[in-house]
Amino acid sequence: MKWCGMFFRGSLCCVLFVFFCYAQEAGDFQPATTNVWGAEYPKVDSKGRVQLRVKAADATKVRINFWSGPKAEMTKQADGFWTFTTPPMVPGLHYYNFVVDGAEATDTGSQSFFGGSKYASAVEVPEPGTTFYTMKDVPHGQVREVWYNSKVTGTWRHAMVYLPPSYESQIKQRFPVLYLQHGGGEDETGWIRQGRANIILDNLIAEGKAKPMIIVMAYGYAKRAGQPAPAVTGPPGNSPDRMKAMQEMFSAFEDDLTQALIPFVDKTYRTLANRENRAMAGLSMGGMQTYQITLKHLDLFSHIGGFSGAAGFLSADQKMNPKTDYNGVFADPAAFAKKVKLLWLSIGTAEPERMRAGIHRLHDALTEAKIQHVFYESPGTDHEWQTWRRDLHGFAPRLFQK
Amino acid sequence: MKWCGMFFRGSLCCVLFVFFCYAQEAGDFQPATTNVWGAEYPKVDSKGRVQLRVKAADATKVRINFWSGPKAEMTKQADGFWTFTTPPMVPGLHYYNFVVDGAEATDTGSQSFFGGSKYASAVEVPEPGTTFYTMKDVPHGQVREVWYNSKVTGTWRHAMVYLPPSYESQIKQRFPVLYLQHGGGEDETGWIRQGRANIILDNLIAEGKAKPMIIVMAYGYAKRAGQPAPAVTGPPGNSPDRMKAMQEMFSAFEDDLTQALIPFVDKTYRTLANRENRAMAGLSMGGMQTYQITLKHLDLFSHIGGFSGAAGFLSADQKMNPKTDYNGVFADPAAFAKKVKLLWLSIGTAEPERMRAGIHRLHDALTEAKIQHVFYESPGTDHEWQTWRRDLHGFAPRLFQK
Repeated sequence: MKWCGMFFRGSLCCVLFVFFCYAQEAGDFQPATTNVWGAEYPKVDSKGRVQLRVKAADATKVRINFWSGPKAEMTKQADGFWTFTTPPMVPGLHYYNFVVDGAEATDTGSQSFFGGSKYASAVEVPEPGTTFYTMKDVPHGQVREVWYNSKVTGTWRHAMVYLPPSYESQIKQRFPVLYLQHGGGEDETGWIRQGRANIILDNLIAEGKAKPMIIVMAYGYAKRAGQPAPAVTGPPGNSPDRMKAMQEMFSAFEDDLTQALIPFVDKTYRTLANRENRAMAGLSMGGMQTYQITLKHLDLFSHIGGFSGAAGFLSADQKMNPKTDYNGVFADPAAFAKKVKLLWLSIGTAEPERMRAGIHRLHDALTEAKIQHVFYESPGTDHEWQTWRRDLHGFAPRLFQK
Repeated sequence: MKWCGMFFRGSLCCVLFVFFCYAQEAGDFQPATTNVWGAEYPKVDSKGRVQLRVKAADATKVRINFWSGPKAEMTKQADGFWTFTTPPMVPGLHYYNFVVDGAEATDTGSQSFFGGSKYASAVEVPEPGTTFYTMKDVPHGQVREVWYNSKVTGTWRHAMVYLPPSYESQIKQRFPVLYLQHGGGEDETGWIRQGRANIILDNLIAEGKAKPMIIVMAYGYAKRAGQPAPAVTGPPGNSPDRMKAMQEMFSAFEDDLTQALIPFVDKTYRTLANRENRAMAGLSMGGMQTYQITLKHLDLFSHIGGFSGAAGFLSADQKMNPKTDYNGVFADPAAFAKKVKLLWLSIGTAEPERMRAGIHRLHDALTEAKIQHVFYESPGTDHEWQTWRRDLHGFAPRLFQK
């Protein structure tokens, strides 16, 4: 009887153990939080693996194409669907599409996010235990869509504006402003839809970690009124023509931001309309734009952030000359520190080596020039939104503190 | 000399005439206004023809699939692109996608709009001479994104809110509210992104034709806390299971709207929080929801609009019984007219016959029951956004006038 019981318990343990191993292997896949209503795929498990599925009954070749992740052939199943399961992916939001017999196809199960100069699919891989970008039961600010008439571009331009929770209740109060820019191929919706900037700020403000502030997110591409659009879309590259087009576009955006958008924002909202209460940050291309614009307009900005960007001007064989580069703003470290209350520079540790090298060169050059700055490395994240969410989470609490 | 001149002039005329004919035939194709930055295709000409192009080098069959428009094989060109030119299409916004060897693919050149329970491409065909939905140099209201915590669904829900231009300047004033719903397979962004509701209202208000009002656009799909999502997505149909799921979903949305959203809106904004100053309208499925919710809650609403919808409850062999249907609200026409200041019913003349027949049956039934209502037919437009833009343009000026 005793033996029998032991045998029974032993068998049960064995069965449970096998089941546990199987469950671990098969995964605990759930529909991604970035799916549209009712869509079963893509699915994500607790290891960060992603299961993808697409119907393409008559196709001969279907590939999965993660922009920073697997690019691989999918497998055709008997039911006409093609499937693929990724290895564990780093937490965050991963852009992807399918390539069906040479044609790009988004995943109809996924929400659509503007990236890569087009609408793309993306899957959210949760970061276990991390809630700084999770919607919580705290007071929520509002995101507004605004249109401003830009004399620079000769067009109505669309921007997103985050107002902190107290903006509505404290109707006599004025607020500082952070201008926050998207990356290349993205648009003004990126920081809300992909980055969750509003949720990050709601949570920081509720915890008393960040000052209530307004965030303005503009469209970083611009062309001057009456001019053709600079050819800066398409695959990135450093051809002279493309670099020239980028500079034209940057210059038009600089004027749009400083001459049209800032006056519009200061007129429309209860802002603290001075340099001490105005910050700018951006990711990737937006980081380059931030450095270019703010360092040229220190009369307008006092806090500066370059997230995985900002290093564009220093190539491998160049050394920064603090006396002349950026109009010599780095020539006098004490004077700079007095004017610029925060200079933030960052990169994810899993970003491509070329990008890491560029940011490190800038970090070293600033250190050598004795320019006070914060250098942040996001552990284990790539040139993707998780890096930039963490950037914002670290950057915002340091704003407008003096 | 005289002959010579005549001959010359004749030749010139002839050349010009031939050129004119050619230009007419070749079209004056321009990139659509709904394209992403820099995208050349799709193109639209002044006749409303649309040129489409998609790269699918290795595909054996590519189809264009307009949801209310051409469904046809595209032609493979030597460069690996597939092309198609539509016949002239009616003005408005037309959803479409490509089907590449059996897989759905959006057009990377197009913006992405949520419709058909997924993100789809769409092309705007302009209506010559029509500017009521064109962005003009008039005061602009703001569109806000809000999140409200719904006890009904047990989730944070996202809604869009339009505030009229004077909301910011007239800080003592309170405003009436229109609840405006999207159609089946769409979401709360539809009325702004596809419908241009904010621009339509900006223009009407600037012309003094509509009262300044708040518009609230909610997500019309809902499930009760702890319940599985009713299976109402996928291809439409009238199976008993689907109808039951629709009713469950409608019922959850009714409670969400009346118990969570309206209190949130009245708490958050300076509203005139009474039935006289509250309207509801919706398109297609949203029209059905509007009729169902408002006629059950006449304590909450006084103005009602069903745009290409609302007729769901009357099948071909049914006759409305005003004494019993909708809890008998149609039993006493005089009492109804005293309570309901506006009952709007509409359909596009180019909509599918089945839909037209349903709306006409309702119109006839209301007429027979002596229920005062406005019946509007949008000339030449289909079950698409141009019909609903015109609806809003006709409906909004009639709101909150008494």
